[in-house]
Amino acid sequence: MSFKLIFNVIGKLLTLEAMLMIPSLIVAMVYRQGDATSFLYSMGIILAFGLPAMLFLKPDTRDVRAKEGLVAVGLAWVLLSAFGALPFMFSGATAFYWDALFETVSGFTTTGASIFSQVEHLPRGILFWRSFTHWVGGMGVLILTLAVMPKISGRGSMLARAESPGPTFSKLMPRMTDNARLMYAIYTVMTLILTALLLLSGMPLYDSLIHAMGTAGTGGFSNRDLSVGAYGNVWAEMIIMVFMLLFGMNFTVYFRLLRGEGLKAFRSEEVRAYWLLAIGAMLLIAVNVLPRFGNFLAALRYSGFHVSSIMSTTGYVTADFTLWPQFSHILLLLLMLVGACAGSTAGGIKMVRVMLLGKASLREVGQSISPRKVRLITLDGKTVGEDTLRSVLVFFFIYMAFLLVGTMVASTDGHDFVTCFSAAASCLSNIGPGLGLVGPVGNFDIFSPHVKVLLTFLMLAGRLEFIPLLALFHPAIWKKGH
Amino acid sequence: MSFKLIFNVIGKLLTLEAMLMIPSLIVAMVYRQGDATSFLYSMGIILAFGLPAMLFLKPDTRDVRAKEGLVAVGLAWVLLSAFGALPFMFSGATAFYWDALFETVSGFTTTGASIFSQVEHLPRGILFWRSFTHWVGGMGVLILTLAVMPKISGRGSMLARAESPGPTFSKLMPRMTDNARLMYAIYTVMTLILTALLLLSGMPLYDSLIHAMGTAGTGGFSNRDLSVGAYGNVWAEMIIMVFMLLFGMNFTVYFRLLRGEGLKAFRSEEVRAYWLLAIGAMLLIAVNVLPRFGNFLAALRYSGFHVSSIMSTTGYVTADFTLWPQFSHILLLLLMLVGACAGSTAGGIKMVRVMLLGKASLREVGQSISPRKVRLITLDGKTVGEDTLRSVLVFFFIYMAFLLVGTMVASTDGHDFVTCFSAAASCLSNIGPGLGLVGPVGNFDIFSPHVKVLLTFLMLAGRLEFIPLLALFHPAIWKKGH
Repeated sequence: MSFKLIFNVIGKLLTLEAMLMIPSLIVAMVYRQGDATSFLYSMGIILAFGLPAMLFLKPDTRDVRAKEGLVAVGLAWVLLSAFGALPFMFSGATAFYWDALFETVSGFTTTGASIFSQVEHLPRGILFWRSFTHWVGGMGVLILTLAVMPKISGRGSMLARAESPGPTFSKLMPRMTDNARLMYAIYTVMTLILTALLLLSGMPLYDSLIHAMGTAGTGGFSNRDLSVGAYGNVWAEMIIMVFMLLFGMNFTVYFRLLRGEGLKAFRSEEVRAYWLLAIGAMLLIAVNVLPRFGNFLAALRYSGFHVSSIMSTTGYVTADFTLWPQFSHILLLLLMLVGACAGSTAGGIKMVRVMLLGKASLREVGQSISPRKVRLITLDGKTVGEDTLRSVLVFFFIYMAFLLVGTMVASTDGHDFVTCFSAAASCLSNIGPGLGLVGPVGNFDIFSPHVKVLLTFLMLAGRLEFIPLLALFHPAIWKKGH
Repeated sequence: MSFKLIFNVIGKLLTLEAMLMIPSLIVAMVYRQGDATSFLYSMGIILAFGLPAMLFLKPDTRDVRAKEGLVAVGLAWVLLSAFGALPFMFSGATAFYWDALFETVSGFTTTGASIFSQVEHLPRGILFWRSFTHWVGGMGVLILTLAVMPKISGRGSMLARAESPGPTFSKLMPRMTDNARLMYAIYTVMTLILTALLLLSGMPLYDSLIHAMGTAGTGGFSNRDLSVGAYGNVWAEMIIMVFMLLFGMNFTVYFRLLRGEGLKAFRSEEVRAYWLLAIGAMLLIAVNVLPRFGNFLAALRYSGFHVSSIMSTTGYVTADFTLWPQFSHILLLLLMLVGACAGSTAGGIKMVRVMLLGKASLREVGQSISPRKVRLITLDGKTVGEDTLRSVLVFFFIYMAFLLVGTMVASTDGHDFVTCFSAAASCLSNIGPGLGLVGPVGNFDIFSPHVKVLLTFLMLAGRLEFIPLLALFHPAIWKKGH
């Protein structure tokens, strides 16, 4: 294990993080609410650790193996969050470090769960940093996976394949770094378009930027206590609804659109299933909440927004859906688990995994009926390897195990089952709001410190899809000479 | 597909079912509560269908393939339940057929969930039949799996291997039918010992028989409204507690004990994990409920009984655990999913599957760290085949999918999440009570007919471990010439 290599990479990432605080520093200086110094202090501390690691820890090998890649990704996320929490502490926005860490991890993992019951009194620079972590975090997985992981041999590309079994990232462009840059460009342009549209809908510039970053990263932090619902602006709601779904779609669709494939770009089993599920769920919930809203169009406005928000794992709200009927709750909970497409900025189990799980189940039944027949599982006309399939099946078990054990640990605070279960699911799938006491009008400050730390861990675990974080605890990582 | 063969087998099973009503008929005649005729009518109808099928449908082939085996098992359970429900209708115990069917399936699948809010006014013959279905159902899987499935080539033994990866059934005795008879003998002797012990504890003969059958099948139907708690008899509680755990243990342990292996018989990773989990959960819950009961021994009495009852998927109760703290609820819910050992009369995912899922997850992390290293998963020192492992992984997904979709459908009645989720889990794992409105003092009559039918389906699906029931809906079953 080359720790020099790992800490050199992390040094680079920390230096980058200090640079990423510059926009928030500028915002803080514009609004003069006294939070500018907290960014300066934070940047100083981060650079004090990051620069020496970047400059003086020369990697003693160029051979980045699976092991180094995993440890680098796992540690990088932990340290980025640990340092990213500093502005919250220096500005006095949070009194306890675990609260600052919760909020920062919630930002970087694009969860959007908050320990603040009210945000409107917080300084604007701090709120900008909070939302900026969403935008970076949404990219983060792309950056980290495409800029750090591709260098690692074997397993790196295997993981990528398991995640997006359509055209893999490596097939889009010959070089991985070009890939990362292309995705970055698409992401930035889409965010700018969204900001412009929100401005046109009548939202102020600052608010438009905050909500564009929150939507792009499928995060969900708002600068308003009532989230998107605060504006009562049906145009802004529709724009955000559509863009939440767009950012939840596999980004290869946009690449194929750019390549001029037209409607063919949407020819993917996952994308089709994603839209079908979204529209089906919207209609079912609209019918279920019809009595609350009087007419179908109003019902569809709210059901559409929240289905998009939950499925894309964003978490913006325009109504308190904890008041809706039980059936809507449970359907929303199921959508929380499923999430959106692989290769997007969204969290959750992911559409393509659910499809492969369904196909594997069907095959198992077929296999029991005629055991000697060879059955291959295909996706978009291509055979899915048995290794990929096994990874997906194991992923599902790990996800459920984390969800159920997380629920149990969260229950030690004595809160009800729905609160604990939905809090764990919401953090694991990087959504934000849950049901019960952590619903749209609630917040995560109800939990005691040990549960907050657990939920912070769940957010990281879900975002990194478990393996890089679990690898840190695996004995094989720390064995010498391997 | 040889339907002659399948319906010949089902004819035999129906004829057997009519014979199995004789003990209940005798009980009904002894107590003279007017329910004897309902058994006579039922037996007449069952024989009218069963005898001709047995006698006149000569199988046109001796080659029972996987296909025929699956359809026979699936249809047999559906028809046994459909006809077994008749005494409830004829005696007037239930007004609607779906209620009678729910109760019968709950019996045969050894679930023990009831639509009766009070049972003490029901005729004793009917109550005896209700509990007798538990005893038959507990055996049923052994009978059906060992007497029907072993004849089928390939997949039959593969399924058996996936279920009990220690010594497979076929390894205990050279012939499968000998196996079935041996298990039957162990089961009967253990039930008789339990009945005798309950008599000694001061329980009346009728009640002892009812509770012995309910415990042996890990079912949970009682003839008292307050279940085992009605007796306030600590000896009876301890006896039932121990026997619930014993019937939840892999039966190969008893075979090995009979063969004179002594303590070595318990040397199985699954059995060890089973006892560890049971004792661990008992202690955790005892600590959690300590404030309710004042002293640790009293807390342990109730925590011990309910952990044994839930883990063994029996469902007897001595207290209303819905009043316990949230942590206890969620731990009990987790135990509901896990269940007991493979090769026992219990339901649930099963201990050995959970262990293999954990081992597969650990391996996945290891595989990510050093991709080129070959890692085999072992159990009791033997390598577990990748096919078996994949079946286990797929089983887990199907279980969770049924649980979550079942919860959603159950919620259409408008009951709370905990009620719907625990009802679905309880039926799927064949336990009996759940939490919320279906807790120890509640019953399943709160649900509307369509939810009752769904839950009936879940009980069957869980008992048959999905495949035989799902196979009935698979197109490959109905294709000609295969």
